[in-house]
Amino acid sequence: MFYGKIYVTLKKGVLDPQGSTVQRSLHALGYSNVAEVRIGKFMEVKLDSSSREEAARQLDEMCRRLLANPVIEDYTFEVTEV
Amino acid sequence: MFYGKIYVTLKKGVLDPQGSTVQRSLHALGYSNVAEVRIGKFMEVKLDSSSREEAARQLDEMCRRLLANPVIEDYTFEVTEV
Repeated sequence: MFYGKIYVTLKKGVLDPQGSTVQRSLHALGYSNVAEVRIGKFMEVKLDSSSREEAARQLDEMCRRLLANPVIEDYTFEVTEV
Repeated sequence: MFYGKIYVTLKKGVLDPQGSTVQRSLHALGYSNVAEVRIGKFMEVKLDSSSREEAARQLDEMCRRLLANPVIEDYTFEVTEV
């Protein structure tokens, strides 16, 4: 069994209204030293696979096909055996 | 300037309907070997701070006060100087 950690973030230059909202809330709570907030998705995927390479290949494919929007998002992932 | 990476995940045992939906979609795409999917939030926070320890202290406070719901979510974070 393998365990994938996937990080999906907005590409640089893509507006992040959610991040701006959180930043304003942090400023309102007194954290005026917060310069920027960007919000992304963190996904944990457990999958059965013949090898770590095969698990990584499948995770990459899952990101390209479903989990990340290639137009506005970047993704990275890590795979460990559990 | 410091850069915080914050990971907010649902506590074990808390139902994850979003994760189940993604898992069903992955199965429909042919990835029947996916055993579990959990979805969380990944936040990047840039903040000006007097020290790395002070930045960490503030990030922890931000998580407890705003960024994570202590009833159903856990959080971890990393701080690096940029």
